[in-house]
Amino acid sequence: MTLNDIILEIKKKESFLCVGLDTDINKIPDFFKNISDPIFAFNKAIIDATAPYAIAFKPNVAFYEAYGTKGWESLQKTAQYIKTTYPNIFLIADAKRGDIGNTSTQYAKAFFEKLPFDAITVSPYMGSDSIQPFLEYKNKFVIILALTSNTGAYDFQYFKQDNQYLFERVLQISQKWADYNQIMYVIGATQAEMLKTIRNIVPHHFLLIPGIGTQGGNLDQVAQYGINQQCGLIVNSSRSIIFASNNKNFDAEAAYQAKLLQQEMRKILLKYNIL
Amino acid sequence: MTLNDIILEIKKKESFLCVGLDTDINKIPDFFKNISDPIFAFNKAIIDATAPYAIAFKPNVAFYEAYGTKGWESLQKTAQYIKTTYPNIFLIADAKRGDIGNTSTQYAKAFFEKLPFDAITVSPYMGSDSIQPFLEYKNKFVIILALTSNTGAYDFQYFKQDNQYLFERVLQISQKWADYNQIMYVIGATQAEMLKTIRNIVPHHFLLIPGIGTQGGNLDQVAQYGINQQCGLIVNSSRSIIFASNNKNFDAEAAYQAKLLQQEMRKILLKYNIL
Repeated sequence: MTLNDIILEIKKKESFLCVGLDTDINKIPDFFKNISDPIFAFNKAIIDATAPYAIAFKPNVAFYEAYGTKGWESLQKTAQYIKTTYPNIFLIADAKRGDIGNTSTQYAKAFFEKLPFDAITVSPYMGSDSIQPFLEYKNKFVIILALTSNTGAYDFQYFKQDNQYLFERVLQISQKWADYNQIMYVIGATQAEMLKTIRNIVPHHFLLIPGIGTQGGNLDQVAQYGINQQCGLIVNSSRSIIFASNNKNFDAEAAYQAKLLQQEMRKILLKYNIL
Repeated sequence: MTLNDIILEIKKKESFLCVGLDTDINKIPDFFKNISDPIFAFNKAIIDATAPYAIAFKPNVAFYEAYGTKGWESLQKTAQYIKTTYPNIFLIADAKRGDIGNTSTQYAKAFFEKLPFDAITVSPYMGSDSIQPFLEYKNKFVIILALTSNTGAYDFQYFKQDNQYLFERVLQISQKWADYNQIMYVIGATQAEMLKTIRNIVPHHFLLIPGIGTQGGNLDQVAQYGINQQCGLIVNSSRSIIFASNNKNFDAEAAYQAKLLQQEMRKILLKYNIL
C-alpha cells in the first residue's frame, strides 16, 4: 500500500479514523464466549460495522499474545479478513517492536510476510539498525514512537540536549533513514499543544494519533496543530468504539460511535480544504 | 524464581552463562527439516546439551513470531520444556516489549501467565507506566534496555542532559520503580568500558550482557568492570553456541562451546572470590 492509496481512502471516506482492535475477551458481549474463536468473531462484526467510516484498522498485538497460540491465530484471521475484504484499508500492527538488526529482520518477516500488515509500530530506543530491516520492504510503513500519550512519556521523551527534546531528536534523526513514503510517527493526542513544534520538524509525514476518547485527546485541537495539506493525520480510537456497548446491538453502537467521529473528521477535512 | 535462586545456580554450575535460543530454521541442521516441529526439536537437543553449563536460557521471541501460529507453538513448547525439565534455570523472554499500561498488562499476561517465563526484556522509551504492569508479578524479573550492543545504540542512548546520558537516566529513574529483586538491565558487551560508570549507578543489580561471541564482546573486560559481590552478571551467547556446527554432532559441538565459556566463567568467579 502506498501513501497515495491512504490519501485516496481518506478522501473517499471523508475520514481519517483508525479503529483500534484492542480486543479484551473480558469486555466483549457474553454471547461470544461459547463459540470457538470469540476474538475473531467479535472483530469480524466490529470490522464490518465500522469499515464504512474507517480508513485504518489497528490490532493491538498484546491483546492477542495474551492468549498464546490461539490468540496469534485470532490475530492472523483478523488481519487476513481485513486485507481480503477491505483491501484499501490501511492495516497497522500495533506491536512496538525493535531489536538488533538480525532480530528486527525476523519481526519484519512476522508482520510483513507471515501476516499481511501494511505497517508496524516500532520503538526507537535501539536506533537506526533496529528500524532498517522494516524499511527494506517497499510499500510498507514503519510507525516510530515519538511522543506518546501516557504519563510515562515524561520520564525519558522530554530528556533534553542543546534545547532539543529526545522525541524531537527521534523525529530529526529518523528522517535520514527513509522519507514520509515509508515512515510515520506516533504522537499522543494528549500532547496536542506539541503538535505545532512537531509539524515544524516533520511537515509532510503522517502522524498516528492514539488517545482520542478514553485517553482524553481532543480532535479539534489535534487538527488545528497537526493537519497538513494531505491530511497527514490518522486518528485512532479503540475502546470508545469497540466497547461502546456489550448488548446484542454492540456492532450498531460501534458503527454509531465510529460514524460520529467520521462526521467530525469530515467537517475538519472540509474546513482545511482537503475535500 | 528469586534472585537468590539465580545466585545459587551460578554457584552450583560455576557459570553465569545464558544460552540464547535465536533459532533460525535456515541455520539448523538439514535433518531437522522434515519433522513436524523442527524448531522445538532443535531447541530440545540444544537445551539438553548445554543445560549443564547454563544458568539461563533466552528464547528470542522474534525468531518464533516469524513463523506465525506455528512459531508461537514452538516457543510455548520450548518454554514449557525448560521449566519442566530444568526448573532451576532462569528463563528469559527476549521480547523488548513496552506499551501503555493496559497494553503492557496484556504482554505481562502473555509471558508470565500463558507462558512460564521468569523474566522479560522491555524497552524503556514509554516510561514508568509501560513497565509497572510487569512489576506486579512477584518473583518475576523485568530486564530493561539501558545500553545496547548495536551501532544504533549511539543514535539516542548517548543523548545527554546535564552531563547525564539517556541510558544513565534510564538506570537512575527506573531504580525508583522497584529494586534489584525485580529489575535487571541489558548492557551490551561491546560497551564494556561503560560498565564502570554503570556499576556506580546500579552497584547491586544483575546485568544481562548480550554480545559475547558474534557481536564481539570480551568476557574478561566485562568481568573486570561489571562483576559485583553476587556476580551480578548474566552473559548471553547465542549463535556461536547453537550454530557451532550443523553436522550430526551439532549438539555435542554446542555443549563444547558452552563448556568453554563456562570454564572461562569459573576462572572469573574464582578470581573475584565468588566461588
